[in-house]
Amino acid sequence: MNFLEERICKDGIVKPGNVLKVDSFLNHQMDIALLDEIGREFHRRFQHKPINKILTIEASGIAIAYPVAKEFGVPLVFAKKSKSINIAGDVYTAEVESFTHKNKNQVIVSKSFLQPEDHVLIIDDFLANGCALQGLISIVEQAGATVEGLGIAIEKGFQFGGRAIRNLGYQLESLAIVDEMNAETGEIVFRKQEA
Amino acid sequence: MNFLEERICKDGIVKPGNVLKVDSFLNHQMDIALLDEIGREFHRRFQHKPINKILTIEASGIAIAYPVAKEFGVPLVFAKKSKSINIAGDVYTAEVESFTHKNKNQVIVSKSFLQPEDHVLIIDDFLANGCALQGLISIVEQAGATVEGLGIAIEKGFQFGGRAIRNLGYQLESLAIVDEMNAETGEIVFRKQEA
Repeated sequence: MNFLEERICKDGIVKPGNVLKVDSFLNHQMDIALLDEIGREFHRRFQHKPINKILTIEASGIAIAYPVAKEFGVPLVFAKKSKSINIAGDVYTAEVESFTHKNKNQVIVSKSFLQPEDHVLIIDDFLANGCALQGLISIVEQAGATVEGLGIAIEKGFQFGGRAIRNLGYQLESLAIVDEMNAETGEIVFRKQEA
Repeated sequence: MNFLEERICKDGIVKPGNVLKVDSFLNHQMDIALLDEIGREFHRRFQHKPINKILTIEASGIAIAYPVAKEFGVPLVFAKKSKSINIAGDVYTAEVESFTHKNKNQVIVSKSFLQPEDHVLIIDDFLANGCALQGLISIVEQAGATVEGLGIAIEKGFQFGGRAIRNLGYQLESLAIVDEMNAETGEIVFRKQEA
C-alpha cells in the first residue's frame, strides 16, 4: 500500500451507499503534510510533461491542487460552481453533476486564465462517475489548450468515470483506487497498481 | 507598501460598485509564491499565539489558509457552505450573507473537528461587512474553543466589518486595507499600517 492507501485504511470510514468519508484528513479537516506528499507524488508522475498550469474545481480540490502547483511552480486555477458577479462575462462553462450533493452545477472558468498555449494538469480529490473531470476537460478544450493529464487522490474504481476517461486516451493517475468497500465490516479493497 | 499592496496595485482592477477584482492572482487564478508569502506573514504576526488549528471558509479561503496551516504545522479546517450528505449530523452552523453573491448561506463545520481545547486562527481572503468572519467566530465559540486571531488578505476599510470585529477585542490582521478606490481612475488608497 502507498502512503494514501495506508491513511485511508487508518482514518477513512466506509458508510452505506458507497460513501467513503475521508473528512478527517482530506476534504473537511486537512492534513497538510499528507497533502504536500500528494503534491510531490503527482509531480513525480507528471514531471515529464510540459505543464504550465494546474486546474481544479472548488472547494476541496483546491487543497489537493495547491501543493501540486507549488511543486510545478505554476499558477493554480480553480473552476467555480456558480456565477459570481465578480467573474467577467467571458467565461468557459460546463455542466457538472455532483455525486455527493445530488445536484447539477454550472462550473465556470474565466477566459482570461486559460489560453490555447496552456498545458494543463487537472487535479481533484475524488473521481466517481467522472462528471467533474469531464467538465474540466471540456473547459480546457473550449480554450483550445492541452490536457496533459489528470491526477486524482481517490478513485472509486467500481464506478465508470475512471475507465471512461482512460478510454479517451488521457493519462489519468489515481493515487488510490477503491475497487470494493464494505460498510458493515469497514473493509476497503484497493486496486493493485505499479508503484 | 507591502508585497500584497504592491501586487494589488499592479494586477488588481477596480470595478464600479466597490468591487476589487484580484482574480488573476488571488481568488480564481492563484499565484502560489504570493500565497506562500502571505502564509509566512501571518505566521510572523501570530506566532506568539498557541495556535493548533486554522479555520477558513470555502472556496478561495482554502488557498490562503493552506500556506498558513503549513507554516504553523497544524491542520486546516474549512467551513462548508451547504449541507452535504457526507457531513455527519453533528455540525456547528452559522448563517452567512455573501457580499459577492448577494445571497445567504448556511455554513457548517463538523463537531468532530473543533474541540473546546482548540486555539484557532481564522483566515479568509476578503473582509467587507464581516459576515463570513462573524459566522466563523460563532462556530468556534459554539465549540467552546478559543479564537486566537483573524488573518485577512484584503480588507475593505470603508465597510464596517473590520471595525466591528476589532471592537469585540479580537486581534484582526489585514495585510492590505483598502480605504478608498476609484473605478474611473483605478486608484486605490491603502490605510497606513505599522510594518
